[in-house]
Amino acid sequence: MVYMTTRAEILIIGNEILSGKIADEHSGFLCREFRALGVDVRRIVVLPDEIEVIAEAIRQAWGRNDLIISTGGIGPTHDDVTIAGVAQGLGRPVVRHPTLESIIRDAYGDQLPDAVWRLAEVPEGAELISATGLRVPVVKVEKLYLFPGVPEIFRRKFEAIKARFQEAPFFLKKIYLAVGEERIVAALERVVKKFPEVLLGSYPVINRPDYQVLLTVESKNAAVLDEAYQDLTANLLGEGILLLKEQRMS
Amino acid sequence: MVYMTTRAEILIIGNEILSGKIADEHSGFLCREFRALGVDVRRIVVLPDEIEVIAEAIRQAWGRNDLIISTGGIGPTHDDVTIAGVAQGLGRPVVRHPTLESIIRDAYGDQLPDAVWRLAEVPEGAELISATGLRVPVVKVEKLYLFPGVPEIFRRKFEAIKARFQEAPFFLKKIYLAVGEERIVAALERVVKKFPEVLLGSYPVINRPDYQVLLTVESKNAAVLDEAYQDLTANLLGEGILLLKEQRMS
Repeated sequence: MVYMTTRAEILIIGNEILSGKIADEHSGFLCREFRALGVDVRRIVVLPDEIEVIAEAIRQAWGRNDLIISTGGIGPTHDDVTIAGVAQGLGRPVVRHPTLESIIRDAYGDQLPDAVWRLAEVPEGAELISATGLRVPVVKVEKLYLFPGVPEIFRRKFEAIKARFQEAPFFLKKIYLAVGEERIVAALERVVKKFPEVLLGSYPVINRPDYQVLLTVESKNAAVLDEAYQDLTANLLGEGILLLKEQRMS
Repeated sequence: MVYMTTRAEILIIGNEILSGKIADEHSGFLCREFRALGVDVRRIVVLPDEIEVIAEAIRQAWGRNDLIISTGGIGPTHDDVTIAGVAQGLGRPVVRHPTLESIIRDAYGDQLPDAVWRLAEVPEGAELISATGLRVPVVKVEKLYLFPGVPEIFRRKFEAIKARFQEAPFFLKKIYLAVGEERIVAALERVVKKFPEVLLGSYPVINRPDYQVLLTVESKNAAVLDEAYQDLTANLLGEGILLLKEQRMS
């Protein structure tokens, strides 16, 4: 059985994150959400508010992954250049979307500052993704979804449309070890070779009384996961170093 | 007066972060630390534990920035491939460093599992950076510093050597506004054009009773920063939209 897995890349755009003024809450949130949705996040890139840099990052992400999520750089001020960067990266002009224009007209009424029209701008060919509870739809350009950086708005928009990203889930088991990593290297390498469909992680911790290493065993194929898990734990039990097994999350 | 500013790139290496199992605490910490040191973080990239992907990221980072910090992927198990990725990216072989070999021999005594020798491996030409309080030195390859991913060890090592990154500090002022961003676009654009040495950020918030937008005004040149700040606040006061000014951090 072959499981399709979308490869995603997350682009976090904002000087405020690189300069340490504001903590990036979006990439961790998206990694957890996408894992639960069965999507494989392959890369996160945090970028400054610069058109050329964003354009180049868009071109590179486009070439290597199936789905791209950007956050930040959407707004009316000089440092909101994500739309311009994406358009340049894709070699398209920036245009005003008529649906966004009318949303803005409704929101601001007669007192329309010139600057708000930038909020109607999109790279040519963009679609709007509407959903229940969203006053302003999500802008999508083929494999790219553009989200604003303001945390409350970003999360509301992502929650509203995330069902469209759902695919076959990952299954995960955890094993806690009473010894250091250097004792289990051979056992892990054997399992990695034997079960190519399984992702095996080994994470040492220090200063914990209860365990020294967390092993994670993961696959979209639940049967193969069980087999790899049994193989690994039997082997580790044989060496007398297994501390705790089991724990399952989807 | 021209202020030298090092351009840094942070590479966070680890499947556990991309798959949402473990939150990345390192990049936020490094952004704050480097800002305080006067270093400009230009990009953060989070990568999987894959040799080819790391090699390509190293080549790209090398070409665009002055200083590269990597965290993670250092250890004895199958998923610790940062050394191999860096070596491949730089076109160098992996070799054992004699100083690391002797540290390992001292730490493990006679009972040396084969796997621990991987901990002595470095890309050819690597230097070791020793510091007070560090049992194991930091591995440096020209502009790249390699740190382990385990949080306690990473922080201890960074703290021990960070003084070497210190340069002229950034100065920062904050302005809190009682109105939305769309009202201040023209004022901001004027200041951006007039003061190219100043970095101006505009960050809207929602659901806060006390302000609607945070402006950050920043420069290594304190005199130019003051001038830009006076110019901007006088202008905003004139429009009756300034809420709170002042606040200074170095």
